[in-house]
Amino acid sequence: MFEKYFTERIKKTPSSFIREILKVTQNPEIISFAGGLPNPISFPQEELKISMNRIADKYGAKIYQYSTTMGLDSLRQFIVDRYKKIWNMDITVDNVIITTGSQQALDLIGKVIVNEGDSVLVEKPSYLGLLQAFCVYGANYVTAKLNDDGLDIEDLKNTLKTYKPKIAYLIPNFQNPTGITYTLENRKKIFDVIKDEDMLLVQDDPYGELRFEEGERIPYIGMNLSEKNIYLGSFSKIVTPGMRLGYIIANKELIKMLETAKQAADLHSNIFGQYLISDYLHNNDLDKHIEKIKHLYKTQANAMVSAMEEYFPSNVKFTRPKGGMFTWVTLEEGKDVMKLFDEAIKRKVAFVPGHPFYVNPLNVNTLRLNYTNADSSTIRTGIEHLADAIKQL
Amino acid sequence: MFEKYFTERIKKTPSSFIREILKVTQNPEIISFAGGLPNPISFPQEELKISMNRIADKYGAKIYQYSTTMGLDSLRQFIVDRYKKIWNMDITVDNVIITTGSQQALDLIGKVIVNEGDSVLVEKPSYLGLLQAFCVYGANYVTAKLNDDGLDIEDLKNTLKTYKPKIAYLIPNFQNPTGITYTLENRKKIFDVIKDEDMLLVQDDPYGELRFEEGERIPYIGMNLSEKNIYLGSFSKIVTPGMRLGYIIANKELIKMLETAKQAADLHSNIFGQYLISDYLHNNDLDKHIEKIKHLYKTQANAMVSAMEEYFPSNVKFTRPKGGMFTWVTLEEGKDVMKLFDEAIKRKVAFVPGHPFYVNPLNVNTLRLNYTNADSSTIRTGIEHLADAIKQL
Repeated sequence: MFEKYFTERIKKTPSSFIREILKVTQNPEIISFAGGLPNPISFPQEELKISMNRIADKYGAKIYQYSTTMGLDSLRQFIVDRYKKIWNMDITVDNVIITTGSQQALDLIGKVIVNEGDSVLVEKPSYLGLLQAFCVYGANYVTAKLNDDGLDIEDLKNTLKTYKPKIAYLIPNFQNPTGITYTLENRKKIFDVIKDEDMLLVQDDPYGELRFEEGERIPYIGMNLSEKNIYLGSFSKIVTPGMRLGYIIANKELIKMLETAKQAADLHSNIFGQYLISDYLHNNDLDKHIEKIKHLYKTQANAMVSAMEEYFPSNVKFTRPKGGMFTWVTLEEGKDVMKLFDEAIKRKVAFVPGHPFYVNPLNVNTLRLNYTNADSSTIRTGIEHLADAIKQL
Repeated sequence: MFEKYFTERIKKTPSSFIREILKVTQNPEIISFAGGLPNPISFPQEELKISMNRIADKYGAKIYQYSTTMGLDSLRQFIVDRYKKIWNMDITVDNVIITTGSQQALDLIGKVIVNEGDSVLVEKPSYLGLLQAFCVYGANYVTAKLNDDGLDIEDLKNTLKTYKPKIAYLIPNFQNPTGITYTLENRKKIFDVIKDEDMLLVQDDPYGELRFEEGERIPYIGMNLSEKNIYLGSFSKIVTPGMRLGYIIANKELIKMLETAKQAADLHSNIFGQYLISDYLHNNDLDKHIEKIKHLYKTQANAMVSAMEEYFPSNVKFTRPKGGMFTWVTLEEGKDVMKLFDEAIKRKVAFVPGHPFYVNPLNVNTLRLNYTNADSSTIRTGIEHLADAIKQL
């Protein structure tokens, strides 16, 4: 009845499947691998309480007043310093804009870059929040398959040739939903393939700090792609998601246009939260804090992988993440993951069926498992029950 | 060079003129009437500090974790209770979604309602944040003139007949930029004119609580327009703008679609801020706090109005606000307000020229003055210097 008023763009936008699933999983008897929540251990609660009192005393009214669209200088400077230290990136605060979580970064980039009908290259499968965000702006998604070592190079070449995408969106580290990390070799090959294309490259990296298996940080794809590179980061997985603070690093001209888009979207991000996180970061050892998170996630990931090795039938495949929050399970071809979902719920285990991560979800036999919100013995029990459900298919 | 990547929609979106002006006014020698900042007296700093420590102790990790897109239940319930008490509105929490400031409310409504080319009715002059927000979605703005008592009814009728707008955006109380409040009679006439039109009506009311002159609250236009009415509110002018918390009240079907749009835009608003404001509101007397703000703004507004009466040439007109934060000055026809701006800056006074508040800013002889951020004697001095500048034209 009221529907006639709705725009075409919003009618095409999928509402989040996961949020529907989370309603099912609110039953406390259910072991849920469906969420994507960081473990509360990653919130430095005591330190944040000290910081909030300190900023209230130190800055007074400023932490409650309107502020600048670009974001708090001291927070942007922290980001600049960290990317300089880790990556030797040649940036200043003018290359950084604070966003209301990484999700807003996606929305703003969509607003500024994606014209109706523009082709957008995404991984297959990709992050569902991106699929929602650019859908609003009329993106035509085109895909390149993900393998265990990263993007499938032949598939990438074909897609580039056929569709000439304007922009690509990739999550090279501990990808959501698959947990896959692109190898250094894969990144180099991708760079060779795309370096002469007229295509912008967004690398979203919410989990990059959470490498819990040995090995070095792997450099981004084409850090010298210059003005065509756009980096996204977030404090959600290493400090707190509740503050909704992420950021975009890009060339100054693009940042300036993103500022206009952000003015129209929410004027600026919560300034209290920016003072709070900035104070926390400048007065504590972030790396030490991250070590604690990584230690826990490693234990949990290992518990899940070894339970899957023990209980799953041998024709079920799964990824072995080296960081981040997810693993990705592939059933035998022809199996219906929605049927598995029903069987699993009967056994009081929940997960996210693969559908929302695909542009065209047909014959889906994949699922995402999150391991950051249950202890090792609960994970073991849940995987055992999930294995029983798989055997019923 | 990079410009070729930008979307048509963002190239058409004006960046905020005011933010450019605010850069000029950062010189501390300048008396600025250009801003739109609430006075810091409106931030209950002591009480908020108590609340932040209380929520940290009471809710622990919850105040830092991901949360629901619709917003915190206790905050939505507070809004429901207040609108029931004041307006006897028949709503539940399902009619309310929390937004990242009112600016996001505008962005989300644009996403969900405004198709490319749809006519949108706005006041002449209108709030520049709305003009930015819907521009992104291809709005075709059409206007109805503002008189001292509200919308010009004949102009409204003509515009409705000619353009059949899909949605109207009005600020009936203490309008930004003019300070004008629609009379009860004017509201009734508007309702008679629009009640059979197939048009949604957004009433944005950030200043409604700030009536400092005697008189009752005036009901919204057509509170019985039912599903076509959309109400916007905000905590920015009565508690703190820095938290970026506003809300939309509308029919459930629309709220549900706004939820999808908000998922794609920023997942949810800062949850720490929602707990904080909710705790503050449930543990303090908001009306008593608002009295303090109104008392100050009344003093400041009176200082500005009486100084204008004393110093301005008699051919200069201005509004006499009964609440809110702004007054609106109209120079003699043919005078150029940009020239006045230069003359005023020479005399160390700043204001916002009328341009950004018009859909088609031609021959602009109007300006907006804010009185909430200077004391009475500074206001007097500033108006005296502004009067000198006017006399130079």
